[in-house]
Amino acid sequence: MSLFLEVVPVAEAVEVARSIAPTVGTEEVGLEAALHRVLAEDVAAGGDLPGFDRSVVDGYAVTAGDTTGASEALPAMLTLKGRVEMGQAPPGTVESGTCWYIPTGGVMPPGADAVAMVEYSEVLEDEVLVHRAVAPGENVLAHDEDFAAGAVVLPAGRRLNPQDLGVLASAGVTTVPVKKDPLVGIISTGNEVVPADAPLAPGRVRDANSYLCAGFAREHGCEAKRYGIVKDDPAILRPLLLQAVEECDLVLISGGSSKDVRDMSAGVIGELGTVLVHGIALSPGKPTIIGRVGTTPVIGLPGHPGSAYIVLTTVVAPLLALAAGAPVPERRVRVRLAANIPSAKGREDHVRVRIEDGEAVPVFGKSGLLNTLVRSDGVVVVPASREGFEEGDDVEVVLW
Amino acid sequence: MSLFLEVVPVAEAVEVARSIAPTVGTEEVGLEAALHRVLAEDVAAGGDLPGFDRSVVDGYAVTAGDTTGASEALPAMLTLKGRVEMGQAPPGTVESGTCWYIPTGGVMPPGADAVAMVEYSEVLEDEVLVHRAVAPGENVLAHDEDFAAGAVVLPAGRRLNPQDLGVLASAGVTTVPVKKDPLVGIISTGNEVVPADAPLAPGRVRDANSYLCAGFAREHGCEAKRYGIVKDDPAILRPLLLQAVEECDLVLISGGSSKDVRDMSAGVIGELGTVLVHGIALSPGKPTIIGRVGTTPVIGLPGHPGSAYIVLTTVVAPLLALAAGAPVPERRVRVRLAANIPSAKGREDHVRVRIEDGEAVPVFGKSGLLNTLVRSDGVVVVPASREGFEEGDDVEVVLW
Repeated sequence: MSLFLEVVPVAEAVEVARSIAPTVGTEEVGLEAALHRVLAEDVAAGGDLPGFDRSVVDGYAVTAGDTTGASEALPAMLTLKGRVEMGQAPPGTVESGTCWYIPTGGVMPPGADAVAMVEYSEVLEDEVLVHRAVAPGENVLAHDEDFAAGAVVLPAGRRLNPQDLGVLASAGVTTVPVKKDPLVGIISTGNEVVPADAPLAPGRVRDANSYLCAGFAREHGCEAKRYGIVKDDPAILRPLLLQAVEECDLVLISGGSSKDVRDMSAGVIGELGTVLVHGIALSPGKPTIIGRVGTTPVIGLPGHPGSAYIVLTTVVAPLLALAAGAPVPERRVRVRLAANIPSAKGREDHVRVRIEDGEAVPVFGKSGLLNTLVRSDGVVVVPASREGFEEGDDVEVVLW
Repeated sequence: MSLFLEVVPVAEAVEVARSIAPTVGTEEVGLEAALHRVLAEDVAAGGDLPGFDRSVVDGYAVTAGDTTGASEALPAMLTLKGRVEMGQAPPGTVESGTCWYIPTGGVMPPGADAVAMVEYSEVLEDEVLVHRAVAPGENVLAHDEDFAAGAVVLPAGRRLNPQDLGVLASAGVTTVPVKKDPLVGIISTGNEVVPADAPLAPGRVRDANSYLCAGFAREHGCEAKRYGIVKDDPAILRPLLLQAVEECDLVLISGGSSKDVRDMSAGVIGELGTVLVHGIALSPGKPTIIGRVGTTPVIGLPGHPGSAYIVLTTVVAPLLALAAGAPVPERRVRVRLAANIPSAKGREDHVRVRIEDGEAVPVFGKSGLLNTLVRSDGVVVVPASREGFEEGDDVEVVLW
């Protein structure tokens, strides 16, 4: 292991990460538990929807031809035969010259092919005056117009939102095949790292990254398992990593902040498996390791939470998205940049910004600071090919 | 109850909804369970962070004055006294003319006030040649520079993201006071409504809205309780609504699609409590009811899932945000509009759009359709004061 890492471009690192994305299984879950889960297969409609010719307005079911030329001055006059009741089969048929009252959602009576809205109709005892002509099919949803039996309601790879759950329920689908939540194992390393509830002796830092990584994993639809804190000793890391790769779909090793520790992680990964990338042209996040032990991807993260998070969003998120078969969930806004962002050419720079009065204000600060994480709303990504952005530039902010 | 609703502007409806937002209690949860929860109080640092003067680079702890004028040509020469080990108190002090190797994160030895980076230093046996001058404080994080003891790490109202969890762990905070998840009760009404797993007889529709509402509630940090489907009979709705307002922080009554049913809901709410709004200048979503029974807000939603969802995002989301004391979580993008969107003046129109090649493509279709919900990515909001947007306009899309 050399002092200066052999860095690869971000795009290459992402490709490597995606190339080792784990395959996760499928399970069937009830609709109530399916929010934000990813469909593993296309889901088709079991029958036609709405399943019957349905009025989409409150009005009168008519034969469209009877209303030809109807106007305020010269309304069509139709005999009112009665009411279609909600949720009931229609009680009769519409013959020429007659109509039935029909509520929104009512079943079209045989013979009717359109609905005249109440707003343009007038009732005179047993007669209805229709003041506007309606075309065949007007204000009617045909029995298979929403989904025909067998049509795909939602495709594989769809991350289910609340509306999707409603539409699936409408189609009579109450359980769905979804991708299993990948299990992400998290190992913290570093002689200086102590548990989050420990007091801080000089030189010690509390274990922030295991909480950060677990939160990230859950936000990305994974389960998380924290394996605790390991001293800088390959003899301790080795068996724990073996256990973690056995149990998990992905293992994150959060590095100590010193080079020695990072090299220990890379050493152990290389010994048990393969190190594919050691160093990315990414700032922060350069000392990242991408490797594999058996078929399980193992990612070595920088020790600083701010750097670790950039690697999670840049490298790990696309890997998890490929495993889930669904796009990376992220939020972006385009805003004006409030101040210059300088950046070194040759590395992709993720610069933290705060959104203030609709502008992106860069949040600068020493690299070791944590307070810049909670004072920022997202990052502006400066591509490796650029030397930064200038005040007034229109930039895209990837929101936390 | 009149046939034509007395509609109020959207802004007024939102104000009414916010004015009846429930007060939810506070609970203490562990950090691992705190993701996306809302802080109920400011959280302060128990001690200084990092807690000791810390190097932020790998290098040599020096007295800055010793490096004054140092350059490639004329390096400063310092006696190397040894190594600061990670996680350990420094083994000695730095006197003028000497230095200690220090790793990133190491404790600054007494007497040192800056760190010369390894990249600009050279080791010759027991001597270190420093090729660049460093200023006092350079590459050092002071003991309270990140957070001073007692400083607010994260404020009340913060919805905790993964980084926040990491920063809180760093500060030694392992449990946090958060707002309790509001409990949202959901009642479906309508003679025509059958359970989602029932076959569809003519005229029947499956209960989509209770799944939609439950998904929405969970997405907005609430628990959801579905109370089942009620026929159009005030004698059945009345006791169920009383039970729901007793048990829940908010009750949603999903209306049948016909006017009769909506009026039944308004009637029962008015009888047991107060109807504050019945009709909003919103499309879709006009026949919305905002009321209160006891201190519990009760919202009557339109029967169609597409309309119901617009009311949830427009009226219910701000109410829940106020209850949580945190902003509405939503995603917006500004894009070019690919086709004209006509709209009637006087009502706020939420027009479904699909994002395609970076443009917003309006998804039109008959009002009863469900497939437009799953084929769209969000909505463009046309304010009541406008008659629509034109192709090429720069519009904001609120993403689902």
